[in-house]
Amino acid sequence: MENVIIIGSGPAGHTAAIYTSRANLNPLMLEGMFAGGVAAGGQLTTTTEIENFPGFPEGISGPELMQTMREQSVKCGCRIETLTVDKVDFSAHPFKIFAGSQMYESKTVIIATGATAKKIEIQNGDRLWQRGISACAVCDGALPCFRNKPLIVIGGGDSAVEEATYLTKFAAKVYLVVRRDVLRASQVMRQRALANPKIEILWNSNVTEALGEKMFSGAVILNNQTQATRIVDASGLFFAIGHAPNTAFLNGQLKTDETGYIMTLPGTTQTNLPGVFACGDVQDKKYRQAITAAGSGCMAALNVEQYLHEIG
Amino acid sequence: MENVIIIGSGPAGHTAAIYTSRANLNPLMLEGMFAGGVAAGGQLTTTTEIENFPGFPEGISGPELMQTMREQSVKCGCRIETLTVDKVDFSAHPFKIFAGSQMYESKTVIIATGATAKKIEIQNGDRLWQRGISACAVCDGALPCFRNKPLIVIGGGDSAVEEATYLTKFAAKVYLVVRRDVLRASQVMRQRALANPKIEILWNSNVTEALGEKMFSGAVILNNQTQATRIVDASGLFFAIGHAPNTAFLNGQLKTDETGYIMTLPGTTQTNLPGVFACGDVQDKKYRQAITAAGSGCMAALNVEQYLHEIG
Repeated sequence: MENVIIIGSGPAGHTAAIYTSRANLNPLMLEGMFAGGVAAGGQLTTTTEIENFPGFPEGISGPELMQTMREQSVKCGCRIETLTVDKVDFSAHPFKIFAGSQMYESKTVIIATGATAKKIEIQNGDRLWQRGISACAVCDGALPCFRNKPLIVIGGGDSAVEEATYLTKFAAKVYLVVRRDVLRASQVMRQRALANPKIEILWNSNVTEALGEKMFSGAVILNNQTQATRIVDASGLFFAIGHAPNTAFLNGQLKTDETGYIMTLPGTTQTNLPGVFACGDVQDKKYRQAITAAGSGCMAALNVEQYLHEIG
Repeated sequence: MENVIIIGSGPAGHTAAIYTSRANLNPLMLEGMFAGGVAAGGQLTTTTEIENFPGFPEGISGPELMQTMREQSVKCGCRIETLTVDKVDFSAHPFKIFAGSQMYESKTVIIATGATAKKIEIQNGDRLWQRGISACAVCDGALPCFRNKPLIVIGGGDSAVEEATYLTKFAAKVYLVVRRDVLRASQVMRQRALANPKIEILWNSNVTEALGEKMFSGAVILNNQTQATRIVDASGLFFAIGHAPNTAFLNGQLKTDETGYIMTLPGTTQTNLPGVFACGDVQDKKYRQAITAAGSGCMAALNVEQYLHEIG
């Protein structure tokens, strides 16, 4: 039986691995095999340059950062299996975790499976992903390629207005592409969007095609009422239609909020089940940064350490 | 008037600086000049090798990590003044911050002044600091120099028992040096200490002198009842008598807990005063790690960003 199994391999999972390894808990990480639609290492493996992870003044690429974290986990003694967890059974101790043909038993579990940015199918969207197409304004908005350029944001909710407003700091102009003829965003956010001279809202619109060879250079936008199409030149396209936490394998065994994020006791990583901890984006829809995820991974490790102490 | 002033320059302060800079808030950091008894960069500048900051599989020295973070803050556009804040006036907007002969006004403030480990005056204690003498078992306990060696922990409270118990994972033996003839620790922790065959409690005792040339090799321990002294050979000495958050300059203007730590709304860095945020060890007596501090610095930056939005 394991002391602790870590499910997931982003910054939260690896920081939990480093800390539980150093605490001699001999952790096992199930890093996933293209779980949640991304490679082991999580969402950062789909990004390019990261400028805001502290400790890297020259920046570091997402895949490289995750590679160094993985090396560090292994070096500290963490065992890593490249398996995706299919289901869990938390109904009794020890907890059971199923991955392919394997079944593992563990005294504690750290869930660090992250979230996946929702995307809309767009022609060329995959090809130009991270070549001007992003799902995180806070992460990428300040990159030189977006400065003083027109940008496109897709979405009509609060976070779309937030991201569009954020991007107006850098961009020459921001087109907000809204599917319907109203914004779902709250009253205050709506007013903010409408009052911002740098934001132009394209109502009743869908982005149908991304343009550009090496880098995104614009989009074909369809008016879903008139069926007219137009080309909008832009250097960046941001999806702002939300994220989905990767929790399907839990099959409802942990308490989540109304949008599916695992609920943790504030200031801790404790879920509603003693012995089960959650860290990183799977329990955080607010900050969603590599460094906040890493911080919460450390908290999970220390919470596990204390829990194992308490149960003796 | 500034948008945001960051007071402090550890991992929390610099991560806040990186994020607020990238959000075009043009932050000003007052990094301190030997504030809280340590150099700009905070407690990490007093440590040697750090093995648990994710992203550095080969480890990195504390001073080097803080140097890279400082470079990154500057590179992102943060202005840094090497001044120690003497006092603040949060009674009206804009907030006023006084440092030497300077007075700054700011819409928001991020407090990241950290905490200082309490130490006891011991002969040679300063000379052998970080040469076998530490104030953090979780940070340093796993270092090779402490493995399978006898270690000494000073303290009689819960955290002393916790650190001693933690160290028994690595150490051959742990001497717990307790000033009185009882442990202040809670009942459960007391039992744990007494039941652990690797822990030997030295009652009514004080460490009076650290021994060793290049590295700590043992201590002179005085029985404060009999006045007898003995030499205890050990490879490590850990202070576990608590930390003091660096909040004197606030002069009681923010709500703190009974031990002086700034209280924040759980899951945020919001203090009881809107517009004033706190991150890192000055508001965290539980986790106190570089990576958790950095994570909370990012949260503070995003909280400031949102607050400035809301007040327009």
